[in-house]
Amino acid sequence: MGVVVSLKDGKGKPRTPGFDRLMALAGEDLKAVDQVILQQMQSSVELIPQLASHLIAAGGKRLRPMLTLGSAKLCGYEGVRHVRLAACVEFIHTATLLHDDVVDKSELRRGAASANAVFGNKASVLVGDFLFARAFELMVADGSLEVLKILSRASAVIAEGEVMQLATANDTETSETAYLEVIRSKTAELFAAACAIGAVVAERPKAEQEALYGYGLNLGIAFQLIDDVLDYSASQATLGKTIGDDFREGKITLPLVLAFRRGTDNERAFWRRTQEELEQKDGDLDHAVELMERNGALGDTVTRARHYGAIAHDTLGIFKDSPAKHALDGIIDFCIKRAY
Amino acid sequence: MGVVVSLKDGKGKPRTPGFDRLMALAGEDLKAVDQVILQQMQSSVELIPQLASHLIAAGGKRLRPMLTLGSAKLCGYEGVRHVRLAACVEFIHTATLLHDDVVDKSELRRGAASANAVFGNKASVLVGDFLFARAFELMVADGSLEVLKILSRASAVIAEGEVMQLATANDTETSETAYLEVIRSKTAELFAAACAIGAVVAERPKAEQEALYGYGLNLGIAFQLIDDVLDYSASQATLGKTIGDDFREGKITLPLVLAFRRGTDNERAFWRRTQEELEQKDGDLDHAVELMERNGALGDTVTRARHYGAIAHDTLGIFKDSPAKHALDGIIDFCIKRAY
Repeated sequence: MGVVVSLKDGKGKPRTPGFDRLMALAGEDLKAVDQVILQQMQSSVELIPQLASHLIAAGGKRLRPMLTLGSAKLCGYEGVRHVRLAACVEFIHTATLLHDDVVDKSELRRGAASANAVFGNKASVLVGDFLFARAFELMVADGSLEVLKILSRASAVIAEGEVMQLATANDTETSETAYLEVIRSKTAELFAAACAIGAVVAERPKAEQEALYGYGLNLGIAFQLIDDVLDYSASQATLGKTIGDDFREGKITLPLVLAFRRGTDNERAFWRRTQEELEQKDGDLDHAVELMERNGALGDTVTRARHYGAIAHDTLGIFKDSPAKHALDGIIDFCIKRAY
Repeated sequence: MGVVVSLKDGKGKPRTPGFDRLMALAGEDLKAVDQVILQQMQSSVELIPQLASHLIAAGGKRLRPMLTLGSAKLCGYEGVRHVRLAACVEFIHTATLLHDDVVDKSELRRGAASANAVFGNKASVLVGDFLFARAFELMVADGSLEVLKILSRASAVIAEGEVMQLATANDTETSETAYLEVIRSKTAELFAAACAIGAVVAERPKAEQEALYGYGLNLGIAFQLIDDVLDYSASQATLGKTIGDDFREGKITLPLVLAFRRGTDNERAFWRRTQEELEQKDGDLDHAVELMERNGALGDTVTRARHYGAIAHDTLGIFKDSPAKHALDGIIDFCIKRAY
């Protein structure tokens, strides 16, 4: 069973119809976000903008700040505060990426050499700290204690999730429940927070804030599930990051949790050797993918992602139809269809 | 010239008369701070309190939170908010220590094995992130945007200072001005912020907040200057950290800046070999200390520290005499006399 089809169209440009609707709606705001990002990552200490721009300018889709922009639009917000707050969300995300690079020793990030490979671990830790602090300075300037509460809590939960992930590393007996708790914390919480603050700036009732939080949380889980599938299946050119990172590091993700639980004794011995003892040889990654395809671990992880995507979709049900709602629905498709 | 006399009295307990006055005044509050710290570093993720307590329970004097408590007392504050805010200050300090341990590869911190030597770099980065985020959650719960502004700015400045320090590492031609900028940012800014928020909770006029900020800033510079002297002179038992760390890493501090500038061509060649090229052999550290004592680099760094201590003292001049003022004055003595 093959779950991967290239994302690229005939011209080599990724087809992202699900994303394009939100881009059409919030693309102008996103340009303003980029301006704030460029301006706020400046420092008289040259290495800071150098290193930050290495990661931030590398681009990516700015999915998380786009969620803040889209959520604000869904709530009918017409002011400008969402732009700076979206930049805060991207700063927090970038800070966690920088610290994650230190942690994971991954060599590629968004297709370019990772920041720590170029600048060293020291600088990655410290510039991450700077961006994190700068995000809080920006939030303080915005002046909403409610936003500060949401994003300071999210930041603590993300760190908890990353530490949990350390604890499950190389443990092939990790349960699906434990794995879900990790990705809910390390990934989905920031998606949820990014969406919730859209309702906060628009001063909408608590129910709408909670709905957007729930949308973001389930979307984030779906996103991470697909990300974990892609680490065993996408072509490096498509994904823009090192393939097989998780396998090489013994990072336990759902495809592996399922493959291990469904495996024969021989297969489990293979997983223990490669993931617990990290004794790996040529051909092991190919064999891992083969096992995962044979017992449906990859396809069923995609099915699980669809489940969370469906919840995210229904969570938006309290909002009346609008281009913004349509656009946020499209993001669910985008996050899941990356795997096809 | 020997600048070091043991801090210990006949019973092996450090004599710290300058510190004791503040302890007499704020010791009860400090116990409450310790309670908040213990409570707030809890997490369902076990490794977090384990690692945090390794560093936080190791103790130290809690100098920075004590400054918040003392400053609040100086301003006549009689509420309880200063306790939680003092805990925030300690969390931010602990987070930077954890990240600093990753950065500096130092093997001892406060006399015990450093957190990263025991738990690994990964955990140190992430638990530092958690404590930093938790500090902001606590500040948000307190609800003062002014406090949030002071401590978010301080956090960004600290990160800038640490990055600046990376840039001066192994550069024997670093100027005294550049060195001062580093320690002002990486150390003194948090001292200043810790003091300033004492005036903020007491709702005192801007002039008193600024005076306390200035006291903390100059005190912090004096503190770091002495710390840098101690790295070339204190006995390991007294200082409770690895001696010669700065020398071994090629970290450029004022004793070295002065020794290099005052040195002969031969001596400069020695500094370049050991600090730029990091080619070190047995006896080099002893020789370094000998050179620094011969050309007065250690003694004159202490003299510089006294200069900043004198400014800190005069900055308190706008406050009328009180036990709290006397206690904060004592902290200046404490910070400087550590070197005798």
